[in-house]
Amino acid sequence: MIGLALSLPPLDLHQLYHGIFAEEAPDLDLRGPQHGTDPAEVEFVFTFRPPDDGFTGMTNLRAIFSAGAGVDAIMACPSRPAHVPVFRVEDADQALQMAGYAAFHVHWHHRDMPTYLAQQPRGEWRRTLTGLSPTHRRVAVLGFGHMGRAIARGLVALGYPVVGIARRLPDLPEPGVSHITTAELDAALPQIDILINVLPLTEDTRGLIDRSFLNRLPQGAALIHMGRGGQVVEADLLAAIDAGHISGASLDVFETEPLPPDHPLWTHPRILITPHVASIPERVRLVRSIRDRLRSLPLKDAS
Amino acid sequence: MIGLALSLPPLDLHQLYHGIFAEEAPDLDLRGPQHGTDPAEVEFVFTFRPPDDGFTGMTNLRAIFSAGAGVDAIMACPSRPAHVPVFRVEDADQALQMAGYAAFHVHWHHRDMPTYLAQQPRGEWRRTLTGLSPTHRRVAVLGFGHMGRAIARGLVALGYPVVGIARRLPDLPEPGVSHITTAELDAALPQIDILINVLPLTEDTRGLIDRSFLNRLPQGAALIHMGRGGQVVEADLLAAIDAGHISGASLDVFETEPLPPDHPLWTHPRILITPHVASIPERVRLVRSIRDRLRSLPLKDAS
Repeated sequence: MIGLALSLPPLDLHQLYHGIFAEEAPDLDLRGPQHGTDPAEVEFVFTFRPPDDGFTGMTNLRAIFSAGAGVDAIMACPSRPAHVPVFRVEDADQALQMAGYAAFHVHWHHRDMPTYLAQQPRGEWRRTLTGLSPTHRRVAVLGFGHMGRAIARGLVALGYPVVGIARRLPDLPEPGVSHITTAELDAALPQIDILINVLPLTEDTRGLIDRSFLNRLPQGAALIHMGRGGQVVEADLLAAIDAGHISGASLDVFETEPLPPDHPLWTHPRILITPHVASIPERVRLVRSIRDRLRSLPLKDAS
Repeated sequence: MIGLALSLPPLDLHQLYHGIFAEEAPDLDLRGPQHGTDPAEVEFVFTFRPPDDGFTGMTNLRAIFSAGAGVDAIMACPSRPAHVPVFRVEDADQALQMAGYAAFHVHWHHRDMPTYLAQQPRGEWRRTLTGLSPTHRRVAVLGFGHMGRAIARGLVALGYPVVGIARRLPDLPEPGVSHITTAELDAALPQIDILINVLPLTEDTRGLIDRSFLNRLPQGAALIHMGRGGQVVEADLLAAIDAGHISGASLDVFETEPLPPDHPLWTHPRILITPHVASIPERVRLVRSIRDRLRSLPLKDAS
């Protein structure tokens, strides 16, 4: 079965994955755009951010697989055939990667790690001796799918008071977590010291975290943004930090990725940047799940 | 009841605590060395690192309270009256502080956060896309009292494989943790990618983490030292990192505290230093526990 890896530079999904496909699923022939495959031969696409015309001519396409947890760029692609199913990664391991990332950045802000890192090269032994208890820091997880749940579970184990926020209350509440719906978000914001965003990108969430949202958080609140670029209005975040209202932010995703080298976010002293690495699905796990999913697809008509 | 706060500069326990004693336990009169109290009047001592002659003349002493989790400096104080009970802090909240600290530093080493922090001021978007799963990093918690247990519980919730090491197997195993005894430590070291030390300081643990110990860890292992200064041979650790065998270390405690400003640990690029702040018991909690403990002491003879 012929598949095509569609990616935008600098990401090269074919280069990253073709060896793993050969190893784990020898019946799947993953090709790259450089191979000049006839689009009519392509039966599955493996992609993260497809080019606008990426799906043109794929008259025999049976499935589209996302190489990441998000499918927003795939759903928005103008050449995507609407009848072909799109599968997202939903991997417990990737959710645990998100949980470890969140626990790190919550501690970063809660314990003011930037101050200790700045003191170190100066040989400065200056200590904060009060307020270290996790119970003083109210953390909210905005978006409560399998990733939000894993994040909340980790933070509960570390003693933080956690509120989970989603469109609907979950069928299965997470022990130790207070659950509210996004209808209550406005009222909840003033009670959130550290906000972790893991919402998917939709028309409802685009631009959600703007000046008015940030100003409803209490003085000194911090933001951990692990959702999607486009949800945080970056200029508003910079202004809220510079105004002293928001104490700092950890950002993994950006309006433009890669973040341009001269972007002011890079050099802001209260912002910690990671280059969209909060979680990356393991390639072997991903290829196996694609293989299994393809095998379970209904057979094509022999037309 | 008269108490004396004994501390060595720069720590001033009287200054830090007298207001809280006045608020939470008005019947306890906490004094500092500057008040010139007659030692025979002192009924309890509140201390962390007492001066060698700190207890001299305290003929009516009834209890000694540690201001921290460790009691090693108190036990070693030559003027301490051996018949007077020493109480250590054992606070679930402090254990959770330790757990958050450990989760931060495990992620720091596992995800190579120093590289991302170094890239940021250069505006460099360079990503590590493989090996992010916590399942790849075998973490050991050396010392498995209430703090080790809280640390392990947090790391299990974040998906790390965790081995707990203590003199004895615990009566109550911690779910998800492999338990071994220190008798098996030698054999276990080659299987440990990140070692978290929370042992108490005793004659058995002094100098334990030396060249031979570090060399038994696998190539690339990292050390998180949250126990006590004196357990890690600092010169051996520096040599093992410079030799490329140990990939890095997070250190909260040191042979000499405060760590001298010109100590080579401060400026080593693979070492993250925090100034003994992994956990600090909340002062109000600590004073309440002292108050309750003193109230439950047997009455003195009216001699």
